Amino acid sequence: MAFSYERTVHFPDTDAAGVVFFANYLAICHEAYEEALAAAGIDARTFFSDRDGVVLPISRSEADYLRPLFVGDKLRISLHPARLTEHSFALSYELVKRGPADKLAARVRTEHVCIRADTRERTALPPALASWIDATQST
Amino acid sequence: MAFSYERTVHFPDTDAAGVVFFANYLAICHEAYEEALAAAGIDARTFFSDRDGVVLPISRSEADYLRPLFVGDKLRISLHPARLTEHSFALSYELVKRGPADKLAARVRTEHVCIRADTRERTALPPALASWIDATQST
Amino acid sequence: MAFSYERTVHFPDTDAAGVVFFANYLAICHEAYEEALAAAGIDARTFFSDRDGVVLPISRSEADYLRPLFVGDKLRISLHPARLTEHSFALSYELVKRGPADKLAARVRTEHVCIRADTRERTALPPALASWIDATQST
Amino acid sequence: MAFSYERTVHFPDTDAAGVVFFANYLAICHEAYEEALAAAGIDARTFFSDRDGVVLPISRSEADYLRPLFVGDKLRISLHPARLTEHSFALSYELVKRGPADKLAARVRTEHVCIRADTRERTALPPALASWIDATQST
Repeated sequence: MAFSYERTVHFPDTDAAGVVFFANYLAICHEAYEEALAAAGIDARTFFSDRDGVVLPISRSEADYLRPLFVGDKLRISLHPARLTEHSFALSYELVKRGPADKLAARVRTEHVCIRADTRERTALPPALASWIDATQST
Repeated sequence: MAFSYERTVHFPDTDAAGVVFFANYLAICHEAYEEALAAAGIDARTFFSDRDGVVLPISRSEADYLRPLFVGDKLRISLHPARLTEHSFALSYELVKRGPADKLAARVRTEHVCIRADTRERTALPPALASWIDATQST
Repeated sequence: MAFSYERTVHFPDTDAAGVVFFANYLAICHEAYEEALAAAGIDARTFFSDRDGVVLPISRSEADYLRPLFVGDKLRISLHPARLTEHSFALSYELVKRGPADKLAARVRTEHVCIRADTRERTALPPALASWIDATQST
Repeated sequence: MAFSYERTVHFPDTDAAGVVFFANYLAICHEAYEEALAAAGIDARTFFSDRDGVVLPISRSEADYLRPLFVGDKLRISLHPARLTEHSFALSYELVKRGPADKLAARVRTEHVCIRADTRERTALPPALASWIDATQST
């Protein structure tokens, strides 16, 4: 089952074109990822900085921008994880602009790879993360 | 009565020192300001872009940074407006890190001046904004 | 011939993992795009805000992140435009980390579509932009 | 003698009001600080993350915003350090918008305090930093 995160568009998200800057769609998706981990009992602060020498950099991102987003817009970001390999996984996001009729505003996808911080070699996903992915993608 | 806004610290707020970047404390306060306006029935999108040729730039900011903020920290930002002149007002913010014992993490203050977009001359605050300030500061 | 832009990584580009936040690779590429337009005599301020009712939103982005970037790293971003249709074009970027041996740090690609601001209908690219794309991609 | 840093305003610096977001003036000043350290032979990457357990958080910021800044504006940021105590120093910045006649756009001031990362107790400034401050402020 997808995890869902709600968020209002604020001024710092926007640029001089009057709408959310394209790169900030990705930043907003990352917030949803952090909230999904927190909801799964994975502590964001240690997860992103101190996991026994394991880091999980993003190796690829893709985004389709379908609608502009304005200050005050109410967003719902849904997030679906999927295992790619023993060392990697993907997150698929949909950003919906809420309203009388919800409207899909963007589709984003990120790929994440698990490596050892010292050698930069690929290594198995941390168990808590693997459990979350497996539990979430099968539903 | 102060308006209050709750917010979790996310990864894009931080920098390589592992904590929220000092300028982002101000961005987070601006979010609280937008939410306070929305709660007062003032539409953020038009307020910040299209008010009959009136703009409300920030003329001054001050911040005292008392504690570092980490990814996952739960914040409460309280906001108190005060009239300065017919054309200007100030907002005083307190950022509290929530926990078993709440801890004050920063004090921020911004000054805002109302000017005509075309001539850059000072002009009276928009009535809806003036009402919000007067109603809020007297309580 | 590709346009090339040089840039140092700064603290506000990074996050608590100690490296440039993945979304900020895209922001850095956008800077290169702005500099390429400026070098072609296209004024960035009017280009991105006031072109006779024409806007050029990004409809898609893709990025492959190959290496982490640290504060102080010296980057060279090269940029190559290509026409897609009468109404759209793509920009291909390479981010290189400069050093004794330059190292490719990321590949980014954005697609841009030209629309009328009022009706959101597709319309022909502005002539100055079309000339820049045609002149640059043929070399 | 003041250190001086040149920078063009880019799209990611701006917000939906069409100008540089007020918090980003501070981020731009921090870039100048990093460049000043680099020019003094102080490595930014280690300086901001790994100095024998010493960190230098910003304890206070003040900014006076005098003029709006637009995409494409050419800035010169000058920076002047001053010792406050054995454990702290201040940086005074002027942001100038370059043109036929340069115009002062903002004045910014930050205070920095040196503490031990483990105990958060105040400690003496690192020698290389102290030397830079003393050499620069006396001229």
